[in-house]
Order: sequence, then C-alpha cells, then structure tokens
Amino acid sequence: MGVKTFDEYYDRLKKLRRNMYMGGEKIDRTDERIAGQLRVIKETYDRANDPEWEDLCTATSHLTGEKINRFTHIHQSVDDLLKKQQMTRLLCHRVGGCIMRCMGIDAMNALSVVTYEMDQLLGTETNQHFLKYLRYWQENDICANCAQTDTKGDRIQRPHEQADPDLYLRIIESRSDGIVVRGAKIDNTTAPVSDEIIAIPTRFMTEKDHDYAVAFAVPSDWEGVKMLVRPAYQHKRKYLEAPIAEVGDAESFTIFDDVFVPRERVFLDGKADPRQTPFAGFLALLFAHYHRHSYTGCKPAISEVLASSAALVSEYSGIEREDHVRDKLSHLIGTAELVFAAGQMSAYRGERSASGTYIPDEILTNAGRRLAGEEIYNEYKVVADLAGGLCSTMPFEEEFFSEETGALANKYLMRNPKVSSEDQHRCFRGIENMIVSELAGVTQVAGLHGGGSPQMETITMMSRYDLEGLKSIAKYLFGIKGELPRYERPTVTPKKMLEKFRNLMKGK
Amino acid sequence: MGVKTFDEYYDRLKKLRRNMYMGGEKIDRTDERIAGQLRVIKETYDRANDPEWEDLCTATSHLTGEKINRFTHIHQSVDDLLKKQQMTRLLCHRVGGCIMRCMGIDAMNALSVVTYEMDQLLGTETNQHFLKYLRYWQENDICANCAQTDTKGDRIQRPHEQADPDLYLRIIESRSDGIVVRGAKIDNTTAPVSDEIIAIPTRFMTEKDHDYAVAFAVPSDWEGVKMLVRPAYQHKRKYLEAPIAEVGDAESFTIFDDVFVPRERVFLDGKADPRQTPFAGFLALLFAHYHRHSYTGCKPAISEVLASSAALVSEYSGIEREDHVRDKLSHLIGTAELVFAAGQMSAYRGERSASGTYIPDEILTNAGRRLAGEEIYNEYKVVADLAGGLCSTMPFEEEFFSEETGALANKYLMRNPKVSSEDQHRCFRGIENMIVSELAGVTQVAGLHGGGSPQMETITMMSRYDLEGLKSIAKYLFGIKGELPRYERPTVTPKKMLEKFRNLMKGK
Amino acid sequence: MGVKTFDEYYDRLKKLRRNMYMGGEKIDRTDERIAGQLRVIKETYDRANDPEWEDLCTATSHLTGEKINRFTHIHQSVDDLLKKQQMTRLLCHRVGGCIMRCMGIDAMNALSVVTYEMDQLLGTETNQHFLKYLRYWQENDICANCAQTDTKGDRIQRPHEQADPDLYLRIIESRSDGIVVRGAKIDNTTAPVSDEIIAIPTRFMTEKDHDYAVAFAVPSDWEGVKMLVRPAYQHKRKYLEAPIAEVGDAESFTIFDDVFVPRERVFLDGKADPRQTPFAGFLALLFAHYHRHSYTGCKPAISEVLASSAALVSEYSGIEREDHVRDKLSHLIGTAELVFAAGQMSAYRGERSASGTYIPDEILTNAGRRLAGEEIYNEYKVVADLAGGLCSTMPFEEEFFSEETGALANKYLMRNPKVSSEDQHRCFRGIENMIVSELAGVTQVAGLHGGGSPQMETITMMSRYDLEGLKSIAKYLFGIKGELPRYERPTVTPKKMLEKFRNLMKGK
Amino acid sequence: MGVKTFDEYYDRLKKLRRNMYMGGEKIDRTDERIAGQLRVIKETYDRANDPEWEDLCTATSHLTGEKINRFTHIHQSVDDLLKKQQMTRLLCHRVGGCIMRCMGIDAMNALSVVTYEMDQLLGTETNQHFLKYLRYWQENDICANCAQTDTKGDRIQRPHEQADPDLYLRIIESRSDGIVVRGAKIDNTTAPVSDEIIAIPTRFMTEKDHDYAVAFAVPSDWEGVKMLVRPAYQHKRKYLEAPIAEVGDAESFTIFDDVFVPRERVFLDGKADPRQTPFAGFLALLFAHYHRHSYTGCKPAISEVLASSAALVSEYSGIEREDHVRDKLSHLIGTAELVFAAGQMSAYRGERSASGTYIPDEILTNAGRRLAGEEIYNEYKVVADLAGGLCSTMPFEEEFFSEETGALANKYLMRNPKVSSEDQHRCFRGIENMIVSELAGVTQVAGLHGGGSPQMETITMMSRYDLEGLKSIAKYLFGIKGELPRYERPTVTPKKMLEKFRNLMKGK
Repeated sequence: MGVKTFDEYYDRLKKLRRNMYMGGEKIDRTDERIAGQLRVIKETYDRANDPEWEDLCTATSHLTGEKINRFTHIHQSVDDLLKKQQMTRLLCHRVGGCIMRCMGIDAMNALSVVTYEMDQLLGTETNQHFLKYLRYWQENDICANCAQTDTKGDRIQRPHEQADPDLYLRIIESRSDGIVVRGAKIDNTTAPVSDEIIAIPTRFMTEKDHDYAVAFAVPSDWEGVKMLVRPAYQHKRKYLEAPIAEVGDAESFTIFDDVFVPRERVFLDGKADPRQTPFAGFLALLFAHYHRHSYTGCKPAISEVLASSAALVSEYSGIEREDHVRDKLSHLIGTAELVFAAGQMSAYRGERSASGTYIPDEILTNAGRRLAGEEIYNEYKVVADLAGGLCSTMPFEEEFFSEETGALANKYLMRNPKVSSEDQHRCFRGIENMIVSELAGVTQVAGLHGGGSPQMETITMMSRYDLEGLKSIAKYLFGIKGELPRYERPTVTPKKMLEKFRNLMKGK
Repeated sequence: MGVKTFDEYYDRLKKLRRNMYMGGEKIDRTDERIAGQLRVIKETYDRANDPEWEDLCTATSHLTGEKINRFTHIHQSVDDLLKKQQMTRLLCHRVGGCIMRCMGIDAMNALSVVTYEMDQLLGTETNQHFLKYLRYWQENDICANCAQTDTKGDRIQRPHEQADPDLYLRIIESRSDGIVVRGAKIDNTTAPVSDEIIAIPTRFMTEKDHDYAVAFAVPSDWEGVKMLVRPAYQHKRKYLEAPIAEVGDAESFTIFDDVFVPRERVFLDGKADPRQTPFAGFLALLFAHYHRHSYTGCKPAISEVLASSAALVSEYSGIEREDHVRDKLSHLIGTAELVFAAGQMSAYRGERSASGTYIPDEILTNAGRRLAGEEIYNEYKVVADLAGGLCSTMPFEEEFFSEETGALANKYLMRNPKVSSEDQHRCFRGIENMIVSELAGVTQVAGLHGGGSPQMETITMMSRYDLEGLKSIAKYLFGIKGELPRYERPTVTPKKMLEKFRNLMKGK
Repeated sequence: MGVKTFDEYYDRLKKLRRNMYMGGEKIDRTDERIAGQLRVIKETYDRANDPEWEDLCTATSHLTGEKINRFTHIHQSVDDLLKKQQMTRLLCHRVGGCIMRCMGIDAMNALSVVTYEMDQLLGTETNQHFLKYLRYWQENDICANCAQTDTKGDRIQRPHEQADPDLYLRIIESRSDGIVVRGAKIDNTTAPVSDEIIAIPTRFMTEKDHDYAVAFAVPSDWEGVKMLVRPAYQHKRKYLEAPIAEVGDAESFTIFDDVFVPRERVFLDGKADPRQTPFAGFLALLFAHYHRHSYTGCKPAISEVLASSAALVSEYSGIEREDHVRDKLSHLIGTAELVFAAGQMSAYRGERSASGTYIPDEILTNAGRRLAGEEIYNEYKVVADLAGGLCSTMPFEEEFFSEETGALANKYLMRNPKVSSEDQHRCFRGIENMIVSELAGVTQVAGLHGGGSPQMETITMMSRYDLEGLKSIAKYLFGIKGELPRYERPTVTPKKMLEKFRNLMKGK
Repeated sequence: MGVKTFDEYYDRLKKLRRNMYMGGEKIDRTDERIAGQLRVIKETYDRANDPEWEDLCTATSHLTGEKINRFTHIHQSVDDLLKKQQMTRLLCHRVGGCIMRCMGIDAMNALSVVTYEMDQLLGTETNQHFLKYLRYWQENDICANCAQTDTKGDRIQRPHEQADPDLYLRIIESRSDGIVVRGAKIDNTTAPVSDEIIAIPTRFMTEKDHDYAVAFAVPSDWEGVKMLVRPAYQHKRKYLEAPIAEVGDAESFTIFDDVFVPRERVFLDGKADPRQTPFAGFLALLFAHYHRHSYTGCKPAISEVLASSAALVSEYSGIEREDHVRDKLSHLIGTAELVFAAGQMSAYRGERSASGTYIPDEILTNAGRRLAGEEIYNEYKVVADLAGGLCSTMPFEEEFFSEETGALANKYLMRNPKVSSEDQHRCFRGIENMIVSELAGVTQVAGLHGGGSPQMETITMMSRYDLEGLKSIAKYLFGIKGELPRYERPTVTPKKMLEKFRNLMKGK
C-alpha cells in the first residue's frame, strides 16, 4: 500500500546513519531540536490517513493504480494540479507555515518530464531509471528534500571559472556503474527529516560546464553525505500548549564529500554524455516552476494565517470595526486571493507534456509567486501594526503562572472583557511565536526567497512572455502596422515552451 | 436576426430626438465631437459581424435560440462569463481603452436575477416585463447606458435627508400605468450614443427612502430626458491616421425632468410597493458586481495597451534590454495577468442563480478590480518613465510636414536608426494621445473609479468575507479552540449570497 | 561631577532590590540575560567619557553650569536639539540598533515644559520639584525609563469606563505627603537596567478620568514596583566575537502594586487637583513629540546599519555593481537621509518655550518618524533580498570550527575570493543576528511602534496642520476667494501650539 | 535698475523676430496659445515689484550692489539658497504649478562655478565673459530658458557614434570670433517666452566627443534658431474666471540650424580647446544639481496645491472627517514636508565654492527630488480618489449658464448645502483643469522627468555616496574591522565634489 503512517516513516528515520552535525556534535533524527520539523511532516502522513482528507491528500498512482500519498504523485491532469495547490494551502493552515514536503515531489515532477524528453531526443534510458525510482517512492511514501542551490562562490563567475572548482556540485568521476560527486548544496529545508536527497542543477550550464550538469537521488544518510543542520528557535512552552508552538524549521547545509551514486539513481550526467548538458538548465527551470506553483498554495495560506491572527487580535483589542483595521485586513486577504487564483488559473491553463505529466502555466505562476514574495514583509508589518508592541515585549509564560506575579500579570493583560485572560494570553503568545521568534525571521526570508526571489520570477516571466506579440497592439493603435490579429494571450504556453526547447536541441 | 450592423444601429441613432446639450447648444447624435465614442461602439458591431470573431462576440439567446450579439446576452454558463471577460479584453485592445458597451448588459444581467428573485419572494410580475424588454434588446442589438450614480448631494445624508429631495433620483408619482421620476444621474459614459438608458439605484435604501427605490428603462431621447454631454478632447490628426486618434469618450450628466415611465418598463417601484425597497441595494450591488467583473476584462487590456506602448518606445529608444526597463514592463504585465486571472477564476467559481443567470465570485472579482484601480496611475507613470519627456513636449503634427521645418523636425526625431522617422513620429504621437491628452486624464479617473473605487471594493470584500471562519485558523494554531475544520475558502459564494438576501427578506 | 562612568552606574544597579521576575524567578540586575542591554547602555557612559565624543555626548547644565552627560540635559537651544539627534544616530551605529536611553531624557524635557506651564497657569509649584529632581539626575548621570503605555484594556472604552478600573494606571489615594498609585505600564524598554522609572499618562484624560491624570518618578526598585522582564534572544557566540552579538534588548511589564510616591516626586495629580487633568494629554503628546524627534536620529541609523550590511554582503557576493542592487541600497540611503533631514529641520524650526526648553517642529518630526515607521519592514526585506537565503539557513558557529566539518564548511562558504572565509562567515553570522534572530523581530516591531505607530503620527500631523490655510490655495486658484496671502507654511509652530493649549486652559 | 516690470519684459518679447512655428505657421510672442505661459512668468515680475514680496523675490547683486530680481541672482550664501527655494514654492502656489523661470538662473549658477573652475585650471578667460553676460542679465531682468536635453538619437551610442552626427548639438566650426553650432534641444519649457536661450551639454563627453562639449547663450530669436512650439491645452473659460484657468505651458523643440555664436557668448568650446571637454559633464551635472534643488521648492508646492484641492473637494462633498480622507491628505502633506525639508537641509549643508557661488548638498537634494518624482502620479490619484468621477465627466461651463439647462445643472450639482452652487462648480471645474486637462498630463510627465527622472537621481546619489564609509559600520558590528570611526555622514560634500573634479583634471 502506498500510504504510510507517520510512525512507519519515523521508524525509518530512526534507523538512518548519524550523518548530521549540530553545535559541534553528531546528532541523529530523534534530536529534539528537529522535533518541530517532524511535527510539520507528521501532518502530511496523518491527513493522508484521515478519511476526511483522503480525497485531497491521496491520489491514484498512474504506475500501479494504487492509492498513494499525493506528495508522491505525478500530476496526470489539471485536477491534480488544482488538488496539489489546495492540499498545500489547507495543510499550511494547520501548521501555521510551510508544510515542507513539496520540494521532493516538485523535483520528481520535473524529472518525470525532463528525463522523458531527454530520452526522446538523445535516445538515453534515463526515464526508465526514473520510473523505477518513482515506484519505490510511491510504495514507501517517501519524504524527500530537493537540493538545488549550490553555494555558487563568486556570483559573476560561471561554475568552471570559480577559484575552487567545487563551489558548484560536480561529477569528479563518471563510470559505467555510477558517478562520484563533490560539492555542497545549501538552504536544504526538510533534509534533516528526509528519507532521500534529490540533487539537481541550480542554473543553465554552458559547454565548459559539462561536469556540473548532474542530477541524482541518494538516501539521506548515504556514504559521504554530511548535513550541517540548523534549526530555528522558538521558546519552549510550559503551560499553554498550542500547535503554533510545536512546529519548527530545520535547514541543512549538505556536503557531498566525494559521494558515489549508482547509475540507476543518476538522472543527468553531462560529464559522460555532454549532449545532456543543456538539460541541466531545463531541469533547473522546470523544478523551479513546479515549486513556484506550490508557492501559490502555501503563500496564500501564510497570508491567511497572518490575516487570521491580525483579525483575532483586533477583535480582542476591540478595534475590529475601525476603518484602517478593515483596510489592512482586506489587503492581506486580497493578496491571498490573487496569488491563489493565479495558481488555480495556471492549473486550468496547464497542458499535458509528452511524458503524460501536466505542466501549469508559467507566466501566471510567476506573476502570482512574485506578488507573494513582494508582499511578505509588508504582511508581517500589518500583523505587528494591529497587534501593537505587546507581542514583542510580553513577559515569559512563567510570570503568568507563578504565585507571586501570576494574578497581577493576568489582571493587566485583560482587554475585551468577553475574552478570558488565558485566551488573551494565548493570542499574544501565539503572535509572539508568529512574528518575533527566530522562526518568524526564517519564514520572512523563506517567503521572499523560497522558490526564487521576485527578481527571479521577473526574469522568468520576461523570458517567456511574447513581447513582440504585445507590441503589435501599440503598432496597430499607432498606425504603424495594419490589422491587429485576434490576440488571445501573448504567452509561451507549456507546450510551446517544450517545443522551443526541443527545437533548440535539434538545432544543435 | 439579433446581430445588427453598425450602420443599422447608427441609422437608429440619427432618428433620435435632439435632447443633448453641449457648449450651450442642442446637438444631435451626428455631432462630430461624439464621433470618437461612436468609433468605439462600432467595434462591437463590426466584430460581431466578423466571422473570425463570431465565436467570441456573438452568443445564442436563451429566449429564442437565435444568434445575438454577446453584448445583449444573459450569462447562462461559466463559459459565458469567461467569454464576456475575454471579449471585453480583446475589444479593448482594439480601441486602446474602454469598449463602453458593458454597462448596459451588466445592468441587464443584474436585473435578470433581481427581478426573478423579487417575483419569487413578493409574487410580483416584474421578471415578465424584464424578459419582454430583453427580447426587444436581443432582437435589435440594443446599445444602452446604465445610469447608476446619483448626484448624491451631501454625502453624509441619506436620500430623504437631503436639503433638496431630488438629489437622488426619485419617484414623484406612481400610478397604475407607470411612474413619474425626477432627479439626475451622472458619469453616464456611452449615454450620448445609446439607444436606451437603464436607471438603477446607487445604494441601499432604508424604510424612509421608498421613493428612491426605483429602476426602469427608457429610450435615450424620451420626453423629459435631458443629457448634458461632455466629450473628452484629443488633437485632431491631419497626416498620421491611427486608431488611437479616432477614439474618444463622451459622458452625460443626465437629467430626468419629471419623466413618465410606462409600467412595463419599470423594474423596481418602492413607492407603490414598499416591500420592493430592499431590492434597491441588492440591485445596486449586483450591477456593481457584474460591472466589476467586466473590469477584470478591460483593465488588463488597458494595462497591456500601456505595456505595449512602453515596450515599443523602449525598443525605439534602444533601451529595451536595460534591467530597469524589463522590471517596469514586467510589473505592468504581472498586474494584467493577475487581474485577468482573478476574473477568470471568478467565472470558474461562478454559480447559477434560480433565474438561470450565472453570477461570478464576489471576493475575487473585487480583489482583482481593486488591484487594477490601485495600479492605474502607477501604470501611466511607467509609460511616462520609459517614454521620456518628449511625449509631452513634441511639436504639433504640422511642423513635421511643413516645408520650412519638416525635414529638420524629422531629422532630429531619429532614434533607433532601423526605425523610420515616420514610425518614430507615430509612436510618440500615439503615446502623447495615450498619456497627455484630456482623454488620458479621463481614462485615469475612470480606471480608478469606474465600477467603484478601491475603497468600495474593500467594503464589498469585507462585507462578504467570512471573517469568523478566517479567525478559526488562529484560534486553532494558538490553542484557543480545538480542531480546525477543513477550511476550503472563507467566502460567501454567489449562492450563499442570494440565500442570505432571501433569508433577510423572509425575516421581515 | 555630572558625567559618571559605566562602572559607577553599574555599581548602583547592583545594589538595587530584587524586584524583577523572569521565567518564574526573581532576578537581579546582574542576570546574564539582560547583559545585552547593559552593553548598549555602556556605550552612553563610555562615549561621554571619551574625549573624541565629548562635544557630542556631553553638555553644560543650565542649572549648574557643570559638564553633564547629554542624556541628562534639557535642550536650551536649536544646537542642543541638533546634537541630541546626531548623538543618537552615531551611538545607534555603534550598537547596531536602539541606544535605549532616550526615553528618560525625552520625558524629562517634556516635564520641564509642562510643569512650568502648569505652574504659570494654575499657580502650582511642580516645576520646583521637577528642577530639584533634574539636579539629582544631572549630578548622578541617571539612566531612566519612561513608562507611558498603559495596558489600556478595551480600547474603545475610556479609562474610567473599563470593567477593571486599574487597566490604566491611577491614583487610588492622594494625600499631602504623596500619592498611592495602582496599575501597570507595558513596553518599558530599558526599565530592567534603569535607575529610575518615570511614569506619565498615555493619552488625553476627560473630566471623568481625574484619577488617571498622574505623572511621577520613582527608583526602579521602589516598594511595590514589580517588573516582569523579557529579554530578546540571540544565539551566544563561542568563536567569532562581534559587537552585534553582544547587544540585546530587555523589556519590562511594570506593575505598580499600590505604590506610594512622595509628593516631591509627583509631577501631575489630577485626583487632588482636577485642574491638572488637561495637562495629562499635553504631557503625553509632548513626550511623544520629543521621543519622535529622537527617532529621527535612531531610525536613520538603523536604516544605515541595514544598508551597510546589505552593501557589505553585496560586495562579498560579487553583485555590488548590479543595477537592482544599487537601486535597493539607494532606497535605504534615501530614507535615512530624508528622515534625518526631517529631524534636523525640525530642530532648525524649533522654538523656545517659556520654560526655556526648546521644542522642535511637530509636523516635520511626525512626517519623518512616520516615513521611518512605514519603511522598516521593507528595509529588512532589502537586506534579506541582497543577502540571499543563507542568512537564515547557515549552520551554527561550531560546525565551522569543529575538526570533522570545519574545513568543509569554510571551503563551501567562499564567495568573493579576495575575502577570507572567516570574514564571509562573520558577515553572514552578523546578518543572521540582524535579520533572523528574535532580537530582529523585536527591532522590527519597535521600528514600527516605538514612539507611536504611523497611524499616530498621521493623527498628530492632521491635528496640528492648518488645513484651512492649505485650502486657501485652491480657493484662490479656483476663483472662490480673492487674493492668496503669502503663505509661508500652513503649520502650528511650537509656540502657537503652546499658546493654543494656554488659551484652551484659560477658556475653561 | 535691475528689477523690471512685466510690461517692460513683454515689450521686449514683442519685438523679437518671428522664429517660432506652431501648427504649420510662423507665430510671434503675442500668439494667444502661449498666453498661459506668459501669465505664469508675469508672476515673477509682479511679485518682484510687490513690496510684500520684495524680501523674497529680489536680491542684491554681488556685482553691482543693486537690487535685482532673485531670478537673476547668483547664490552668495546659505540664505540665498533658502530664499530661492522658498520663493519657488510660494510662487508655484500662485500659478498652481511650475513657475517656469528657474531653468535660466539654475544654468547661470552652474556656469558661474564651472567657468571659474575652468579658468583656474586651464588659464582660460571664460569667467570674464560669463560675468559680463551676467551683468547684462541682472540689469535687464532677463528671462531665459536652459536648453540642455539633446535629441540623443540611439541611446546606447555616444554622440560621435550616432548614425547622424547632429543628433547631439555640436560645434561644426570654431574660429577666433566665435563658433558655429548645429543640432537640436528638446523639452525646452519657457523658451517661447524667453529673452535668451542658454545651451549646455546633456552628459559627460569622452575624448572622441570634443565637438559636443559646447555651452553658450544666444537671444531667443537669433539667426538660425528655430523653435517648434507646443502649448498645452485647457478649455477656455467663458464665465468662471480663475487663475487656474489662465495658466498654461508651452514647450519648444529648438533647432540650431548652423547658428553662429559670438565668442563672448561662448562658455565651453571643446573643439577649439579639447582640454575643456571634461567640463561638459561637470556643467551638465551642476546645472542638474541646481535645478533639482529648485524642484525641492516647486514640487512641495505642487503637492500642496493638489492636497489643497483634495481637502477642498472633501469639504464640499462632506467627507472631510472620514479616516481614509485624512490618511490620504496627510500622505500628500507629508511628502511635501519631507521634500521641502530635504531642500532646506541641502541649503544648510551648502558650501561656498572658490567662485563665491554657494552649492547645496547633493545627496539630500537628490533624495528629495527623487521622492517627489516617485510620488507625482500617486498624488494625482489621491485627488481623483477624493474628487470622485465628476471631475472627468462634468458638462461644459455653458450648460450651467444657459437658459434651458442652467437651473437644472446647478440644482443637481449641490452637495454641502452651506456652499453655493457656483462655488461647487468652481471647485470641480478647477479640479478638472488640474487633473484631466492636457496640461495635467504635461504636469505629470514634468513632475516625473523635470530635472531628471528618479532613475537619474539614484545614479547621482550612488555616485556621490561614500559606500565604503557606510560599510565600515557593518564591518565594525560584525567584528571584521576594529574601531568604528566617528562617522558623521558618509557623503561627498560640495567642496569635496569640487576637489575631486579638480584632482581628476590635474591627474590628466
């Protein structure tokens, strides 16, 4: 059966080799500092096993016809894209932030397309390897990280130009049974609790960068893989239990210290076969695309979580009816709605690739993700604005429960007399977690950069957008050119994007 | 047959009584100062008669099964909503701005729902009158204005509290064969070239405002109707013909100077039947809703027209590849995409009302329209930024064609050497029309206020949005309340909105 | 001598009674969790004793003619206002954020004006008490907190309307030798390391709120004063020492548990003398005004600290010359310049009050402070944008120094090859402290709310601004009124503000 | 005497040769289409002759000690800079926009510095020519245009690289008695009503661009000078006279058709003396700097004019007390205050150059001008928002005065019952002029581009700002470098800027 329980998954994790480092020590997957991240991932297993969520959180494998966790599914229809987005959004509500399991499946969807296209164009057999690996995923309900971001060294140099050739992950040896890779990947959210690490390129590679055109998957405790793990801090609660206080983030700076990868787990190898090099950029972009589409699910949820908190604290403070409060709330809500709608319409405009995998629309996905990224800091500002200073100055929990100060602290916390002091406390404590904790700082940065910063979305949009088509409107209106063709939408659709890539490849 | 030609329509207009005033004189519909508006409306007839546009610009009447102009169609499906939006967008590209014919059909759609609901709840027979009137519309391909905005007097007083009771349009007499109305409606775009004027309320009416709960339709030259017409100015072209230079706007300040309306053309009469009064606000909002949904079609088009001009002038000036230029263009494009997607998703989430008419989603429609309104001035700024000062300082056309200065003027206009001097001239002349003419000022104001200003969309959004549902997220995360119900979307859907209104009515 | 050393001050603190609570325990002023705040305050003593800073950080007492710390000085000239602002800015650079000692002296300046005006108008002798207290301050180089913000309960109720009458600090007994007060003040930055607490009202008080019109000063360990202390967290450094890692914040939720205040330390007593009640609002606003003027010093510094970090990390990543990087940096710099200029011009427009104390211009101070508050979250966004994700995902310090992972971690951190790995590490570690630590969250909230949120500055601006004067421009231009008087500036100057208050008082 | 009357000035204009072209015809300076611009200039003569304005609008010549119009004065002190800025602001209030006479005097101030520095460095005698020309200016109260913007052809090519070498103004012959120039300058506001045209370079010139390093002055009707004139349109008023309706703009596209300039009117000649070429860029920047400082006077005025209109129409519509109205007004006011303060502080930080002329601070001037430019379109949005749609749809004036419709039109225009219908009419008519006329479009573009667009101010700021100094803060805080020097302000002051240029020149 393709849907596992959290316990089954956690049992696997416990058995993994100790290859994680934190604070100068080797730790294993039961270290309490990564428990917050496990709490998040737990939601993805629990809901898939929950009859009320089954329709959203499970899917039917196109390989086996069996029921699987949607986080291991390859999109076979527009409906799959819509459900992926909605699942992401609803699960994020439940953990008050990132659901942390998208990366893996977004990488798998990208690989399903790219390996297929590569086989068609080059006659390779990578898609077979991939499908075998996918079957393993679906049967075991695998949780994975996608390690994309290289450390990149000097940003104005290409991989092969760096002072140290290892600053981008590279193949140092390619042989028939597999490859040996060296380098590091950073910003690897979820890696500390993942079964598998999928590594893919971070950018286009030129003809001098063949060694850097590499993609593969390895178990997260594989020989040579070293994870430097960084958790995000929140104050431990002693009295007031709450979901918001239990979740956490953990990141990995993952070093591939001369790691051997067996051939059947290699999905791109520009060193052995330089014809594969152009697929590096194609894979990089397609993963980014699926991941940005996931952001059109999670970011509206985060906007809604923030709006929800802002609305609640406004009620508790008695200012809910003020004009400026409603203006600010409606701004958060409007952003959530627009970003989610962008993702939904990207799904509706999605098209089937030759591999059978559906690809959402790029322009809209990027426009939606960009708006979310542009707004993230402003959204925190709105919550801070409506919550007032107390969320950043409130005494610790213990002061509200100690004999000496508890009664006084609770007395003076009261606002709306209809709300109990404890609920007021819970509200401000929750907002403290949400906007002034270390985790808040991480969520802000992730909201800006995750899946690519607004700068990257602009670049992607402008590289896809049919600017000449657009100009035809002005040329017609200004009398520079004759008739204006019926101009449906000046966009390179998913199919055209694939075709363009194919032509590019054939042209070589 | 329900699709007429422009000439058939124009012949009707020519026969209308002279009841329009401009510059102190009575004018008729052939006055050259409103020719620009006719040029716009012409597009809606020509395209409906153009085989290449037929699928978009015509529809099948649900009354007769005959082919009709889509501008006379009542939405019978999600697809109708999508097509209306797309038609609006594509036609706006062709006229470089507002297509000016939405108002009438948006009012008709609102009436189709409200009269039906009213009949169901009150046992009236208004919908029969409406359907008969609709049939006349469809058969004759009627062009109409919707006169909604009252002059409103002192904005903090309700209609019946005004110093002058006529500052909102009101029924001064209601008798069996019809009503007599007095008052004025302003901002009546298209009225100068309309066959018909449809008057509807501008706001909710209280129990003291029964006389103001009024809706009806009259021919635009009806006895007692006086239109004070204001066209928007553009410099006449002598040499460089271009669509942008031919279009124009004309507005009417429409006075109902004790006008008798026959009963079969009355759609709301709170004076005779005070039970109808609550339907005033319902109708006001529903028209605004359809009209804002139309804006999710036209506003993206205007953003695209502006982006198109900005892209073209950037190419001509040789700065197209500059980072800041691409950033700015992508901002315009992103806005267009997001607003259009909001409208499309509003259509996909649309629901069938009891009358059979489809209603799009309110939250998204308002979020989209609001973003468009918030951005309009900024979009002009981007065009001005990329065009540079010349668009506002360029000599008149004649200087480029006169013997004495023509050669010099053309010599010094040259930028990109691959583009002819005449095309450079056409480009800057077009941008002059677009951003520094009087028409530009009108388009800016219309882009902000048309269909309701951002302020109004915020109010509508917040009155529909399920804020308590939203708060349940924070309550769950903060440990204030137990389980979080699967929270699909905290919105009052179209059906729930109708239900709410019905319950409100029944509660009385 | 009026300038003390840090050690002299710290010796005083050590002797204070244990009346602070943290994590359920009583703590004293040597608790290491408040050491970060002491580190900040230390700067204010060290620089006053540093010959290179003497001109800026010391002043001459107008009471004694002796040299004193500028943080105990009452502004006697425009130059004093300018120096206060510049001192604040330069010291904030050195601690990477809030210098934390403004509040006390801002309250003292407000009291110097208000007690004098009160004496003049009511014949009281409060200013004498104040001057005696000031002398004590100046002689001992006192560090103080100003406790202004009441807990405020239900925000739509006035103090006397609250369900619990103690939700605003109030006088429960007034007798000849002093008063007894009950209530709490929140958001009391610096209180944990202050010698003295100065309490002042948070808003205007009506005739039913006499008991709440209260201002006084007490030693911070005074009988009945209980401080619930909350420090802001930063990861302790083990290897890379840096000023940024040593500073910290600590806030107090200060409870006045029936505290007796001797008469000579009481500066406002509406209970005994209801004529004093209107001075509550006057004092509240005047403190806010001085404090906002201090913000025109500290906020530009924070913008510059953020800009500085953003510029440094851009250099290290090799992107310093990119257009978008320079655009973003220049935005931060521009904000800093405009806010600082607003404060400087407020000083230049400052006027001498009858008490001899100088008051800066209100409109400009508020316009400057507001811009700073509106921009604060956006400024963090820029730093995050240019720093990239690593600042939020970087492994702990130990991983860079351990035998097993140190070499690898340092190898992969390299960017600009001219910068050592350690400096790259220091840079990202510093930015981590600056934008993803708990302290960062507190600084964001403080940057928005400290001294009053943008909403409050708008209210203050609009209550002072001469709107009728402003309208005279349009009236002239539109031909509604004749000649336009030479219209220097439509503002209530400091002197006019005082005069207005005096007239208001006399009118009673 | 150095202060002339408007009539004296106008008499001169009338005598000028007919060298202006409009609509295919030669026109002279009495053409009614440029009367609006004359109306603006009139203000600068009238106020200088008005005893109440004398202190601001006149100055004492440092050449002759006589009283002169401040528009012909070279800044000899900080006070002169402050008065120039304030004069500009107050006069702009009176004409509802640009006062149009700054350009000339801003160019003269720049020339006073640059010719002096050039003489010092190169031993030329240009400053003597300049001073003689200045004396002529001051004695005759000369009104001049500064023609800076070349047509520029392809923007990515330098002057000598253009397909047509005339696309930047150039010297085609340099001989002992003078030079012959060919080319064109655009965006020449005020040129149609100027006595003199001063031409200066638009950018830095390289060693291949010697012929383009040229500056000179000629009478505006000089042989070979041809002006293609474009006025901005406003509807003529018949009934409601008002200053707003009388003002207008006129621009010139000025062609130098092989114009001989006598040597004593030549201020820069890179063709004859290539050592002068680097002064081209110096002069271009210094003029821009003075002109941007003028913008810190006019742009606050325009913000205030818009705010004034918005406040007035809000009062007339009865919404003045609404929260959102006050928010929006305060935003306009705040921008005006901040920009004006930036200019004032630039003056206070101004420094005396070796020539005796004062130069304001560059960073602040640019930061202020940039904010103004960024906000201009948004400010129009606020006025449109508060005025509502009527300002763009209101019937023509005649409809309010005709027998047939006047009473009705006036009846329905009523809002606030305390305000007469005529004043309501005047208010909306004025706002129509202000935001939907062709002149409004021109003012928008000018507000963005005049003196250089925000993009240009960013470039100037970043080229002056001491970024390495700024980074020292982060280096200190992060422990990368030791002590932080007392860091007053990381700016290249005016004196340092001059020194830098001198060193650059000497280095050659």
